[in-house]
Amino acid sequence: MTRAPKFRDTHISLAHGNGGRMMRELIQELFVPALANPQLDTGVDAVSLPVPADQELVVTTDGFTVQPLEFPGGNIGSLAVHGTVNDLAVSGAVPKFMTLSVFLEEGLDIELLRRVIDALANAARECGVAVVAGDTKVVGRGDCDGIYLAATGIGFKPRGTDFALDHVRAGDRIVVSGPIGDHGAAVMLARQEFGLRGDLRSDAASVLPQAQALMTVTGLRFMRDPTRGGLATVAHELARATGLTVRLSEAAIPVNDSVQSVCELLGFDPLYLACEGRLVAVVAPETAEAALTALRTVAPRAALIGDLRVGDSQVVLDTAFGGQRSLDELEDDPLPRIC
Amino acid sequence: MTRAPKFRDTHISLAHGNGGRMMRELIQELFVPALANPQLDTGVDAVSLPVPADQELVVTTDGFTVQPLEFPGGNIGSLAVHGTVNDLAVSGAVPKFMTLSVFLEEGLDIELLRRVIDALANAARECGVAVVAGDTKVVGRGDCDGIYLAATGIGFKPRGTDFALDHVRAGDRIVVSGPIGDHGAAVMLARQEFGLRGDLRSDAASVLPQAQALMTVTGLRFMRDPTRGGLATVAHELARATGLTVRLSEAAIPVNDSVQSVCELLGFDPLYLACEGRLVAVVAPETAEAALTALRTVAPRAALIGDLRVGDSQVVLDTAFGGQRSLDELEDDPLPRIC
Repeated sequence: MTRAPKFRDTHISLAHGNGGRMMRELIQELFVPALANPQLDTGVDAVSLPVPADQELVVTTDGFTVQPLEFPGGNIGSLAVHGTVNDLAVSGAVPKFMTLSVFLEEGLDIELLRRVIDALANAARECGVAVVAGDTKVVGRGDCDGIYLAATGIGFKPRGTDFALDHVRAGDRIVVSGPIGDHGAAVMLARQEFGLRGDLRSDAASVLPQAQALMTVTGLRFMRDPTRGGLATVAHELARATGLTVRLSEAAIPVNDSVQSVCELLGFDPLYLACEGRLVAVVAPETAEAALTALRTVAPRAALIGDLRVGDSQVVLDTAFGGQRSLDELEDDPLPRIC
Repeated sequence: MTRAPKFRDTHISLAHGNGGRMMRELIQELFVPALANPQLDTGVDAVSLPVPADQELVVTTDGFTVQPLEFPGGNIGSLAVHGTVNDLAVSGAVPKFMTLSVFLEEGLDIELLRRVIDALANAARECGVAVVAGDTKVVGRGDCDGIYLAATGIGFKPRGTDFALDHVRAGDRIVVSGPIGDHGAAVMLARQEFGLRGDLRSDAASVLPQAQALMTVTGLRFMRDPTRGGLATVAHELARATGLTVRLSEAAIPVNDSVQSVCELLGFDPLYLACEGRLVAVVAPETAEAALTALRTVAPRAALIGDLRVGDSQVVLDTAFGGQRSLDELEDDPLPRIC
């Protein structure tokens, strides 16, 4: 990656957002070299994008306010890519383009911004996504917390591809692509406010390979990435949309020991912690094993963790000790600014 | 517009951003009824959008941090629509869809949020734009200034439509669609920090009718909406991209008396003030009068204000008093948070 050497500002000032010289230099000398791609043209207000023949256009949007801005396993830049890519992936689409809206606080360290943009650029490259349009706003000291990002993802899927909640039926099985809660636990620890240190890393990553592997199997009903609110929140969404009972098996749900320990120590439940590189899918019972096999080619710790049954619209956990408990919908926010 | 009556929260709390019950209710009971359209489905991570045959997909993105959140002539919600629509319009596209990323500060008055979302919804309807995807994040008190928005606009234009800077030639004429600086001046006064009150209103509006009127004329080279940095910044962009001298006639540039007075009083130059409902276009000399005529059908105060000439790459103003002065590129930010 080549960089114009002349960008020498060390901190963001209000003039970096005013449309004039300093904003032009910030964009030309810091953003553009990192994000360079054929579609990115800072001389236009809007960009034309190719739509592949016989494909459906798919769009998603997400804001990112994670605190701290950098955490083990990623930073707000890479997270913005993974979060955006994953929303497209679970809809059955292949992500291709992304727009990026950047909110910067006056006084922000430019080196930190550079690390964030570099991580974003690298994640985008790895995911095959081009950042095709952007906008930068600067607000005064104390009017934002360093950096907020908003990303819109644009992808394409074969016409007729549809993994929506209304395909889910009683008897369907639920699969998760790997251990849950690593992102939430890693960000929580990175805040240091708990006085703990650990070797936890965020699971933030693209779930596109997982989604595409599942899509080779017939009987795939629905996919979702369990971000804010975690696996329990996806389970509630399933219960609410179908009117069925979602039954999860605690013993079957993969949780890393380090996540479990932190949760026990601090009183969190991993079922409600955000993942940023996992996928929850609902599959027909007759192809559930085939789906698991396909998923394990790219996600070795994938597991069948429950099913949907006729009954009250609720989420029930079969505990590891042979009991049952009802999982409530998330109320208070135990962990704000997790993504 | 019907509203579910049960949303009774009066202020935003962190739990409105946590993915759980309160966030679901905020979205279902405040956002969705206002923004209702066939594409908006809160049960999906990503939305499929139709692409008209033989049209090109065009995308733009913008962040909005205007302060105050409400000002004469609009608020941050309507501004987000107009800003987004206008970036598409000047590229020759017709805006159709929009995504919306919302950043809210803990403690925000829900009635204010409602007014913002209502204004956004009304502006979108007037512009023929459907808000098809959204995301809401809540940050703690003091971590944002009430509301920030990021919008991505999606539109379509006939294949081959291209109004880019590289079409501009020496001899081309420059046209502006109406008086400049009203948005910047109105927002400035609304801040009250200057101790002034006036009857100024933002010009914020869709420029789509203006752009479409100009597109009926041959010889249209380039269009741009003069937002941050104002007309002078668009002129500098033209000079930089073409290597030509941009010559503007002060006497020909329409400026409302109220804007002029405020500028004289406070030492601002209307040429650098943001507009949010004006368009600057470059047209071939032989069709400049025809372009002006076409533009005036929808923008009666449109005017030919200058031209491009062989010479140093610079912006020169022929002053109303018969002199000349060079217009510098904007350096410091006299008016942060204008959009």
